[in-house]
Amino acid sequence: MTNSTRVTFLGPSASFSHQAALNSFGKSVNLFPSVSFAEAFSAVQNDSADYAVIPFENSTNGSVVQTLDLLADRQGLYKDVTVCGEYFLTVHHCLIGGKPTAKEKYGSITKLYTHPQAWGQCDSFLSKHFRGVERQDVSSTSKATEIVSKDTSGQTAAIASRLAAEHYNAVVLEENIEDSADNTTRFLILRNIQSARTASASVNLAGDVASAKTGSKTRKTLISFMIEHSSPGSLADALSVFKTHGLNLTSINSRPSMLRPWQYIFFIECEHVPNSSIHDTLEELKSICKSYRELGTWIDGLPFPNCV
Amino acid sequence: MTNSTRVTFLGPSASFSHQAALNSFGKSVNLFPSVSFAEAFSAVQNDSADYAVIPFENSTNGSVVQTLDLLADRQGLYKDVTVCGEYFLTVHHCLIGGKPTAKEKYGSITKLYTHPQAWGQCDSFLSKHFRGVERQDVSSTSKATEIVSKDTSGQTAAIASRLAAEHYNAVVLEENIEDSADNTTRFLILRNIQSARTASASVNLAGDVASAKTGSKTRKTLISFMIEHSSPGSLADALSVFKTHGLNLTSINSRPSMLRPWQYIFFIECEHVPNSSIHDTLEELKSICKSYRELGTWIDGLPFPNCV
Repeated sequence: MTNSTRVTFLGPSASFSHQAALNSFGKSVNLFPSVSFAEAFSAVQNDSADYAVIPFENSTNGSVVQTLDLLADRQGLYKDVTVCGEYFLTVHHCLIGGKPTAKEKYGSITKLYTHPQAWGQCDSFLSKHFRGVERQDVSSTSKATEIVSKDTSGQTAAIASRLAAEHYNAVVLEENIEDSADNTTRFLILRNIQSARTASASVNLAGDVASAKTGSKTRKTLISFMIEHSSPGSLADALSVFKTHGLNLTSINSRPSMLRPWQYIFFIECEHVPNSSIHDTLEELKSICKSYRELGTWIDGLPFPNCV
Repeated sequence: MTNSTRVTFLGPSASFSHQAALNSFGKSVNLFPSVSFAEAFSAVQNDSADYAVIPFENSTNGSVVQTLDLLADRQGLYKDVTVCGEYFLTVHHCLIGGKPTAKEKYGSITKLYTHPQAWGQCDSFLSKHFRGVERQDVSSTSKATEIVSKDTSGQTAAIASRLAAEHYNAVVLEENIEDSADNTTRFLILRNIQSARTASASVNLAGDVASAKTGSKTRKTLISFMIEHSSPGSLADALSVFKTHGLNLTSINSRPSMLRPWQYIFFIECEHVPNSSIHDTLEELKSICKSYRELGTWIDGLPFPNCV
């Protein structure tokens, strides 16, 4: 990969997607935020980015429907967008201030800022040190950090990542204040399947990241499909194809098809090793589905095996 | 059912859940709002309501995860809550003002209020008549109506339901301004399985509603279960049980198990007719699942057949 590799992530700057992009690609690439999920997909489709890093699933909150809906691509806007990798980021929160404040001085902090989801993720810490303190919701943890970074009175603090603190030159007062040690977000790495620039690099990227962390060469493939809703057992038939070929499913999701109410587009992800029967499996699946699209194959980034 | 039947719905007053509750139970029951999904579940569990009406799925936006997470009942708080019916409500929006305003006077309206989701649902109408007009997000369409009902200047309007207009004595300026004629929300009706008060009434309720509208006596059953994630093909096996017994699946959902990251609790809904093999099917399913709970059986409220 050259230094001019362009990687977009779901913004704002210093978001968790930014962290995932940094961890996946390092600091030498050209990293820039997209203001929305759709903008990140467009950037890859229109070749204004080589890669996009977007959240796909959180271990506590479940699937990210915005990503599923863009992968469903009901209007055919993102025909060339394909998944080429994944990155698992453990979500750590910090208490961040505009100036250093010792623990025994937390009493001087009278207002806290963060994204609504983060309050619940740091409940024990907040109950212990900040009971009854005013809470202000903001649109992102990054924004919360920006706000408190400008206040050196010692009366405000944000809950956000270390990256956000570094980005805004704010002070980390305390690290790992989250309740759950294993709150993890899985990010997908997208590329354009027509791009010669990323065709070889992406495999190496995914391989390097995955094998360095896991030693695994297991691959994952993501497929979207629709089935004939008037035919009973169609979904069971589709899933049976994977079982017959001995392939594990690692996730299943459904979203409205938007073609007719109460009909769905399904997303299935399976794992396989090199030289497995994945090709035959997908051909068989294709033959029994009303619509079918392969959304990408990449090297497993998960440090432990799992299947559904 | 007596007049003292207590029915709670997801508030605020004049919400779409309120409309679904009115359509299902009529005006003679004691209807009251719950401020949250959890409060509606608690009301049924604690017997402060006989029934609760909550949204489960929208034909455009998909499943309502708050409802799935409460049905998952990971802390065992809602052991006796069971689904006893469903109601399909087509979502219609109106343009609502504090005083009558003719169409040719829409130019005097300089500010619009609604819930963020409703803007997108009325895009064509708004583009035609209110291009560039200021939009103010509020927490509910009901709240939007309350705000404009107090303004008789003719300069503000809300997008909300006819029920909201009636509730706040506001004026419906135009009806059915939504883009899609088939944007439908499915509501579940909950009762307490221990309650003798609702044991017989609920079946009649669902039966009356469903058969009056559809002539159908098809029933639906909702089950939640977890499978052994280390065993390949477990989900395919679980779904095959339904296929083997000739039962159609009508929905499938998954949410994080919260026991371990990347393990899931599944929700499956199937349809069956009286004297079908549903009992054997569920016994077989139970025998192969790690955990299993029947969440209720009710008479199908959908006016057309569908299966996955």
